[in-house]
Amino acid sequence: MLVNQQQYRTIWPNENAELSLSGVSIIDQTKLPHRFEIVTIQSLEQMIDAINNMQVRGAPLIGAAAAYGVALAMQQDASDLYLNHAVKQLIHSRPTAVNLKWAAQRMLKKLLDLSVADRLSAAWREAAAICDEDVELNQAIGGHGLMLIKALAAKKPSRLNIMTHCNAGWLATVDFGTALAPIYAAHDAGIALHVWVGETRPRNQGASLTAWELSQHGVPHTVISDNAGGHLMQQGDVDMVIVGADRVTSTGDVCNKIGTYLKALAAFDQNIPFYAAVPSPTIDWTMTNGLKDIEIEQRSPRELSWINGMLANGELAEVNILPPNTHVANPAFDVTPARLVTGIITELGVYAPDQLKTIPFINRLG
Amino acid sequence: MLVNQQQYRTIWPNENAELSLSGVSIIDQTKLPHRFEIVTIQSLEQMIDAINNMQVRGAPLIGAAAAYGVALAMQQDASDLYLNHAVKQLIHSRPTAVNLKWAAQRMLKKLLDLSVADRLSAAWREAAAICDEDVELNQAIGGHGLMLIKALAAKKPSRLNIMTHCNAGWLATVDFGTALAPIYAAHDAGIALHVWVGETRPRNQGASLTAWELSQHGVPHTVISDNAGGHLMQQGDVDMVIVGADRVTSTGDVCNKIGTYLKALAAFDQNIPFYAAVPSPTIDWTMTNGLKDIEIEQRSPRELSWINGMLANGELAEVNILPPNTHVANPAFDVTPARLVTGIITELGVYAPDQLKTIPFINRLG
Repeated sequence: MLVNQQQYRTIWPNENAELSLSGVSIIDQTKLPHRFEIVTIQSLEQMIDAINNMQVRGAPLIGAAAAYGVALAMQQDASDLYLNHAVKQLIHSRPTAVNLKWAAQRMLKKLLDLSVADRLSAAWREAAAICDEDVELNQAIGGHGLMLIKALAAKKPSRLNIMTHCNAGWLATVDFGTALAPIYAAHDAGIALHVWVGETRPRNQGASLTAWELSQHGVPHTVISDNAGGHLMQQGDVDMVIVGADRVTSTGDVCNKIGTYLKALAAFDQNIPFYAAVPSPTIDWTMTNGLKDIEIEQRSPRELSWINGMLANGELAEVNILPPNTHVANPAFDVTPARLVTGIITELGVYAPDQLKTIPFINRLG
Repeated sequence: MLVNQQQYRTIWPNENAELSLSGVSIIDQTKLPHRFEIVTIQSLEQMIDAINNMQVRGAPLIGAAAAYGVALAMQQDASDLYLNHAVKQLIHSRPTAVNLKWAAQRMLKKLLDLSVADRLSAAWREAAAICDEDVELNQAIGGHGLMLIKALAAKKPSRLNIMTHCNAGWLATVDFGTALAPIYAAHDAGIALHVWVGETRPRNQGASLTAWELSQHGVPHTVISDNAGGHLMQQGDVDMVIVGADRVTSTGDVCNKIGTYLKALAAFDQNIPFYAAVPSPTIDWTMTNGLKDIEIEQRSPRELSWINGMLANGELAEVNILPPNTHVANPAFDVTPARLVTGIITELGVYAPDQLKTIPFINRLG
């Protein structure tokens, strides 16, 4: 998508990546919305750090980053031992993200069958293929979601208000986004819409990333505190909720950024359709009970106590909002039970939660 | 309550207040938890600013501040004209707070009957009486809430987990607090408990005020993002929710800090008792439908975009978290419908929402 009128993806190999010691470029998302900075990643360790520090974040982008992490590892050492080590390390860097595991294991399967000498170039090609496939999936999600938005817009004379949570935009993927793909598609199709963007504490990805990318694309939007989501639904100011997900069970439970469950409860209470938009690799076919089966990542208390932003003088800084020695809990995700979910928007179509299981095995990418 | 081992109320008249031009002292709550600063208010205008800037905040404390605001006004000009002007200005400074209106009108009624010469000293006495009555109400609330906590604690072998929202502690009142009064009473009675403190965006009163005052009193607590409230309830980590309220309708709808509705939805979904603790002047007997009747204050977008805190070097600073020119909506309160509320804890006892109307007229202070 566009940044300062120039087309970008969120991750790309540097020139000559296949030929010599080279790197992968990413947008450092921890600096947004105040600075737009490209960072070059040159080793497996740096990629793990980038995933762990959330310089790259969002389930699909983490998958792409893991794939390139394997490619960088092959540049360092293409042995079976190091390949297995790399895949294991990457999978452990963010336990909740199913795409990460999926991408890393796809790389492992592809490369293990090849001779050590062939692995590096094959790894670069496979990582690029994973990226291109993500872009195609997201465009297909956008198309299916567009149909839902069109149907709602047809029933409403004024502009449609869509609420989202966190960032499941193009910055969370290789391009186009998941939750925002239908919104971009509808906006580009000339449907009048406005997006409520929850700031998404503790890391403020809504305030810093979703607001930034919607602004770059010219989509009308308003940032709110996460606390305001229910009130706006009560007031009739929300027509639809679309969120992304880090994992969806085969039964339609949605694991997404902490706070999603609260928005889903309010949408259910107010009879507002609530959708999760995901590429099918986000569906974990082995899981049937999200509340029991999904390990919820506990992240650093620092994410809550220290807030990144820009001082009045333009300098970036972080401020502590807590009294000294305050105990903090920081679960990063929650699980929205399927009973609160209207549908799952995938590249294959829109499914009621209990209909996901009708997706044929041959179409299950995960 | 104690601050640095010394006993304080949140507001008090300076020495000799009755005799000469004098002032009222308040704790500047916008500086907490990083600085403990006492500010002297010397005029009606300064008191209105203090209420408007939330140097004093919390419904009961705002009521006390309004009463002292009238006393300060009488110091400036004790005429009928200025008295009426002062009361009107004070009532308009925070439209949602019913205590403010109640206290200002009580002052008006008391003073209008007196000669101009008698008004100043009577105003100081009446404001002091309002403060003392608030303290008594809160102690009674604490006593009634203690019974509820005891009953839950008796059924649980491990410590009780109580969730609160925003700050309805002693800092929000003259002393003891409303939502926290039962918690302080239970803690002091030796009941093992732990408090989940939502940070309460956009102004972070949970993170900055509730955490601070619980810490000063030695009550175990953990700060969480507001988004984490639902997840903790889902996990079985919450036994009870107690919040304050800025207004309760005669039918038991609870208007409180934005985000309360979301916590109530989650508590209802998880079958966790949800209480609002309020002195009876917070009950607005004229209102029967909170969603229709209560005007929700829209506050400055700046509260969301700029976050106050302390830099690593100890300086206080604020940082902007939003892209330039981002549109922000900032409704400050929401309404939790009575159907989600287990009970209202008042100084008169604990009432199911639909039983509030059984409170005899003679006991209705509001």
